[in-house]
Amino acid sequence: MATVEDIGVSAAFNILVAFAFLLAFALLRIQPINDRVYFPKWYITGKRSSPRHADGDFVGKFVNLNFKTYLTFLNWMPQALKMSEAQIIEHAGLDSAVFLRIYLLGLKIFVPMAVAALMVLIPVNVSHGTLFSLNKDLVASNIDKLSISNVRSKSIKFFFHILMQYLFTFWTFYLLYKEYDRVASMRLRFLASQDRRAEQFTVLVRNIPHVSSYSTSDSVESFFKKNHPEHYLCHQVVYDANKFEKLVQERNRLQNWLDYNQLKFERHPEKKPTRKNGFLGLCGEIVDSVDFYKQQIKELDKKLTMERQKILKDPMSIMSAAFVSFSSRWGAAVCAQTQQSKNPTMWLTNWAPEPRDIYWKNLAIPFFSLTIRRFMISVAVFALVFFYMIPIAFVQSLANLEGLEKVAPFLRPVIELKFIKSFLQGFLPGLALKIFLLILPRILMIMSKVEGYVAISILERKTSAKYYYFMLVNVFLGSIITGTAFQQLHAFLHQSPAQIPRTIGVSIPMKATFFITYIMVDGWAGVASEILRLKPLIIFHLKNMFIIKTERDREMAMDPGSVDFPETLPSLQLYFLLGLVYAVVTPILLPFVSVFFAFAYFVYRHQIINVYNQQYESAGAFWPHVHGRIIGSLLISHLLLMGLLSTKKAAKSTPFLFVLPILTIAFHKYCKNRFEPAFRNYPLEEAMDKDTEEQSSESDVNLKPLLADAYLHPIFHSFEEAKLIEFRINKSQAHILSRLGNCSFSPSHDVHHQKEEPSDNVHHYEYELPGNVYQYESEVSNNVHRNDIESP
Amino acid sequence: MATVEDIGVSAAFNILVAFAFLLAFALLRIQPINDRVYFPKWYITGKRSSPRHADGDFVGKFVNLNFKTYLTFLNWMPQALKMSEAQIIEHAGLDSAVFLRIYLLGLKIFVPMAVAALMVLIPVNVSHGTLFSLNKDLVASNIDKLSISNVRSKSIKFFFHILMQYLFTFWTFYLLYKEYDRVASMRLRFLASQDRRAEQFTVLVRNIPHVSSYSTSDSVESFFKKNHPEHYLCHQVVYDANKFEKLVQERNRLQNWLDYNQLKFERHPEKKPTRKNGFLGLCGEIVDSVDFYKQQIKELDKKLTMERQKILKDPMSIMSAAFVSFSSRWGAAVCAQTQQSKNPTMWLTNWAPEPRDIYWKNLAIPFFSLTIRRFMISVAVFALVFFYMIPIAFVQSLANLEGLEKVAPFLRPVIELKFIKSFLQGFLPGLALKIFLLILPRILMIMSKVEGYVAISILERKTSAKYYYFMLVNVFLGSIITGTAFQQLHAFLHQSPAQIPRTIGVSIPMKATFFITYIMVDGWAGVASEILRLKPLIIFHLKNMFIIKTERDREMAMDPGSVDFPETLPSLQLYFLLGLVYAVVTPILLPFVSVFFAFAYFVYRHQIINVYNQQYESAGAFWPHVHGRIIGSLLISHLLLMGLLSTKKAAKSTPFLFVLPILTIAFHKYCKNRFEPAFRNYPLEEAMDKDTEEQSSESDVNLKPLLADAYLHPIFHSFEEAKLIEFRINKSQAHILSRLGNCSFSPSHDVHHQKEEPSDNVHHYEYELPGNVYQYESEVSNNVHRNDIESP
Repeated sequence: MATVEDIGVSAAFNILVAFAFLLAFALLRIQPINDRVYFPKWYITGKRSSPRHADGDFVGKFVNLNFKTYLTFLNWMPQALKMSEAQIIEHAGLDSAVFLRIYLLGLKIFVPMAVAALMVLIPVNVSHGTLFSLNKDLVASNIDKLSISNVRSKSIKFFFHILMQYLFTFWTFYLLYKEYDRVASMRLRFLASQDRRAEQFTVLVRNIPHVSSYSTSDSVESFFKKNHPEHYLCHQVVYDANKFEKLVQERNRLQNWLDYNQLKFERHPEKKPTRKNGFLGLCGEIVDSVDFYKQQIKELDKKLTMERQKILKDPMSIMSAAFVSFSSRWGAAVCAQTQQSKNPTMWLTNWAPEPRDIYWKNLAIPFFSLTIRRFMISVAVFALVFFYMIPIAFVQSLANLEGLEKVAPFLRPVIELKFIKSFLQGFLPGLALKIFLLILPRILMIMSKVEGYVAISILERKTSAKYYYFMLVNVFLGSIITGTAFQQLHAFLHQSPAQIPRTIGVSIPMKATFFITYIMVDGWAGVASEILRLKPLIIFHLKNMFIIKTERDREMAMDPGSVDFPETLPSLQLYFLLGLVYAVVTPILLPFVSVFFAFAYFVYRHQIINVYNQQYESAGAFWPHVHGRIIGSLLISHLLLMGLLSTKKAAKSTPFLFVLPILTIAFHKYCKNRFEPAFRNYPLEEAMDKDTEEQSSESDVNLKPLLADAYLHPIFHSFEEAKLIEFRINKSQAHILSRLGNCSFSPSHDVHHQKEEPSDNVHHYEYELPGNVYQYESEVSNNVHRNDIESP
Repeated sequence: MATVEDIGVSAAFNILVAFAFLLAFALLRIQPINDRVYFPKWYITGKRSSPRHADGDFVGKFVNLNFKTYLTFLNWMPQALKMSEAQIIEHAGLDSAVFLRIYLLGLKIFVPMAVAALMVLIPVNVSHGTLFSLNKDLVASNIDKLSISNVRSKSIKFFFHILMQYLFTFWTFYLLYKEYDRVASMRLRFLASQDRRAEQFTVLVRNIPHVSSYSTSDSVESFFKKNHPEHYLCHQVVYDANKFEKLVQERNRLQNWLDYNQLKFERHPEKKPTRKNGFLGLCGEIVDSVDFYKQQIKELDKKLTMERQKILKDPMSIMSAAFVSFSSRWGAAVCAQTQQSKNPTMWLTNWAPEPRDIYWKNLAIPFFSLTIRRFMISVAVFALVFFYMIPIAFVQSLANLEGLEKVAPFLRPVIELKFIKSFLQGFLPGLALKIFLLILPRILMIMSKVEGYVAISILERKTSAKYYYFMLVNVFLGSIITGTAFQQLHAFLHQSPAQIPRTIGVSIPMKATFFITYIMVDGWAGVASEILRLKPLIIFHLKNMFIIKTERDREMAMDPGSVDFPETLPSLQLYFLLGLVYAVVTPILLPFVSVFFAFAYFVYRHQIINVYNQQYESAGAFWPHVHGRIIGSLLISHLLLMGLLSTKKAAKSTPFLFVLPILTIAFHKYCKNRFEPAFRNYPLEEAMDKDTEEQSSESDVNLKPLLADAYLHPIFHSFEEAKLIEFRINKSQAHILSRLGNCSFSPSHDVHHQKEEPSDNVHHYEYELPGNVYQYESEVSNNVHRNDIESP
């Protein structure tokens, strides 16, 4: 058992680590050479194109020689606070702004709670405690003397604890309600203030039934023309382009090599770049590199053209999904919220996600398969959550010093040193857990993808939910039960339902020290390492040295990706759980949680302003989940306090505590009804307002150019030229007036166009739309990045 | 413990009772005097106006003198089968047809199951059983020798039981799927084939926000004109008319007395009917009755006019709800399925129920109150379900013969008679339960009304759900646990979750005899008493003798009401539960269940054709509940078999059984996604088809007359004359073309109209729309009937 001194040592150590990280960050961030690692957002928004502090001379390009800037090395903190919320929304989107509000909410909940609890509960717990009179060996730790464990059984003092629990619960209700209200109205205001965007007019239709004599495109058209005659505008079918995608990636690679060699040739015109034409450039004849890659690209383009024609011609490559666009937001809102077909598994309509948010591979999964997939994955998640406990318990039993000494007796002399013992006891269990948790998000993301969600934002939310359940069972419950005794696990499964809260309730105060160290290791030091960005820094410089050939490569290497919601949200929610559970039991934990929220708020504000670049905008769609989990934490805290007090023989108090979960559920239901629809539906009133406003400001709104290719698979963009798109729009507009009424990438006439002008066509495939390529590439790299690189 | 002989006696007794009831029914139904009790449906549909067998002479009017008809006294059974399903739908509505399908489903499930189980499981259970070798005193009953209890622990024979459980589960899946599919398509076809009806174009809007400067009517109009400009047609606000309703009832009573006296005077013109004008006609001056009632009605009409004007003028009497009608089914379908306002608790839209289905009193409950009401009621239902157990257990412990002898030792000589003992043991426990259950539906219906549902059909479904949960806990679980030992209840609450299915599983085979007698008492005899209609028969004749004064009174006394869904559906579902649970455990129960389903099918088919008159048509909306509860029964049966086998130490079988509940949940999820939307939404495709068809057949559809007063509170109809309505329609049509566009009972000009022609107005209030009055009266009496009269 850790004592107060252990906590002190651990706190000192973690504060030191955090400060070291902050200092390192302060020094590294002002070096011009690191500018692209610590301020990539400014490069991406185009407000900066070269390092800020770069002086004229050669050395100044890499190292900051202006020593004045070293003196003000902590000035990032006030800088991070300068931007107002409205500016952050404009700069980084609503998701980021709402994300920061979670930290603020944590502060608002826990700082007043900490003050109240320390002023009222600590004196109540300390005075005339039971634990002072006990033998020193039996007393778990000094921390316990400040906790509810120190109050005698049947004491009248529990009245204070119950009163405080009521106060804290109502305080949390008040803040949650205010916050939900605010976030919901922020979301509606944000959606209302958005410019005209393709997703406002578009609905994703899935499970289009296959009628043998019609093509998918034709049946979509006739169905929506019939059932939404006044609002249907056009549609875009979804192609199965997985093979094509691979070819495009290969072409991008070759294009990159070509650019590199051309650049090399421009800089040193005296030396023509050459390479061998054999396997991996290691054997074969020596040839001119530029010519070689040009030749290769030409061959690949031919393949691409053929593959593209095959996709467009072959009805098998058209998936049973389509993006249907409407002439008004009202029409799209109606279609997204209603049931279309008599068979409710056909013609399923949902709001289309933003084009950049779509996870294309999942668009074609049929309905029946979805049901089965989700069911299988929920069984798998259950297994993962519950059987992952065993390795964690094993590692923690090792991290227990007595266990470690038994396993490795030769370490005893080292461990027995007082300082090292304190250090290990404070640090090891938290660290072991943390390492375990790092490899997990990848698996969970894959699981979510198997479940078949079609938007990256939804995938991230689902992953985050799975991760939270994992943490709840394994970090929270697992630490409480296996930490004290692994044997309890078995007992736990064979107990009566009424017994479970009691078992956990009793263990809760004993584990306070563990969770305090956990908050320091995972929270404090973790957040400090977040701002240092050590891994991206190293990777960027390594890439800069070995891989980066062109400016485009540098941009890709610099790309910071989005805030990692699947990992940060669940751990954030775990801190809410810890704070709420321990608020009454061991109030000394609250200042630690509050410090975490404050520090993390600064750090993430800085990161969102300077580093991260959101890949999608869900307009705060994750808020209902955050809200729901804080409510869940409240319920858990009520249940555990009930269990704890029942072991303290304060049976008369149970009826008072029984009211709290009922109130909490009622509050949750009310909030759900009141606010959640704002996150699911787009109200018709809003849609109509926006339509009317737009019609009055612009007399003749032409939506076609906006919708033309918004929902075309991004790889088709990558080697189209702007002209071709325009040509297609014009052509399809003429077309709409005739029979088809389809603003999409229409297979038939497109193929025809290619046949007429084959020479023109080859020309189109030259690399002329870097923006589009970049967009796509960044999406892919974002996924790869999250799944493969960030984990150790 | 009941033996096979007890069961035999009980069966014989119940069969005798059932036959006695059937014989009585056969004799009573052919008496002309009872014709209105046993064939009211034919009077209501207008196909019969006087008794069928009534001969010319005086006696023949009351007693059937045609002795030939006595010889074929069982011919109601083939008669009941003559009507085809399509004819039943036309004759009695889809609800009734779907209701009958539940009995057929029961037969389809249990008859093949019974055959298979008796052929396979009974030989397996009987051969080499453990129970033969035991002491006679310890053996519970001979029935047990046919059950799974007779199989030795760890026997390989359990393989047969698991195999049969799989077979039975898949058989049930197959039938459930087919049936859900069929009912869903029947529902869609029924809705598609319906004539134009007000509810197809109308949406119920609740929680209309109050804007101080606008009236509710104006704000409804402006809101829907703005947000559904192409589809909004008109609306009808809802008035708070509870006081008015009482006056109308009083007026109807007086009108009835007037009719009676006028009739009397016509028949005996020589004797003028008189009465005293004082208290209850017992004191005061003697006056001419006709004049007296005419005078009274005149006075009441003045009051009514004033009250009516007050309601129409006073903005406080307009509730925050309205019925909004659209010019097409498509428009209404869109409005019903979408979110209207930014604030999701305002402007809530749902399909309007049929006018006759509306429960007017609940229309004005605000949203916030609804959340709280539902929450409170769910707590109350929980309390009722779980604490009602105590009196039942008490009564059952009395019904236990040993207990009874202890409580009343003087009864011992009577009880110890072998025949009476068998009778009591077989009959008493079931009877005690039945009496308990009879007073319950009233309470549950009141609870559902407090919850604030706005349609009678929903109220009945919710009551039926509550009743089912009650039966599940108290009849099923309660009998199993308290029946064997009341002490187990306490133990049950203090057991581990894994232990509960084992505890119940062990008791299950022991309670088979109890449930067999229950099926005979509640099922066989209960259904036979259903066809006899003893209570309605007695009440009708009593009313006929003492109360009935006019033809209208006779019609009211004859009114059979609807099939009592809140009581019949849950008990039906309980039989499914019993059948599925005992199919493998004690297969001898299956024939009893099958006989019940067959017998009940005949009886209810006869009753639906000849007796009941549905008060509303929900197009089979209760089917998802029936399906869901059969799935629930399957899950319970799997769980209990698992528990039972684990006590039989057939531990290796558990993995096989574990798959079943998972499959069942997956099947349920699939069915829910596949079929349930057909019961909740009206697909746009369907709406558009219907609209188009109608437009092509009738070039100029005028919906105004249809929608004009469809959703006016029925009491306002009761003293309007047809002319006045027409006048209003014409006037409001003119009106619509001008500013208001409102086809409703518009307060302003109606009041105006009354002021202009006061003399004309009094004339209007004369009783001229008996149909409407009748309709309303029957609705009220239906409620009263269900709640007050039918319970003992």
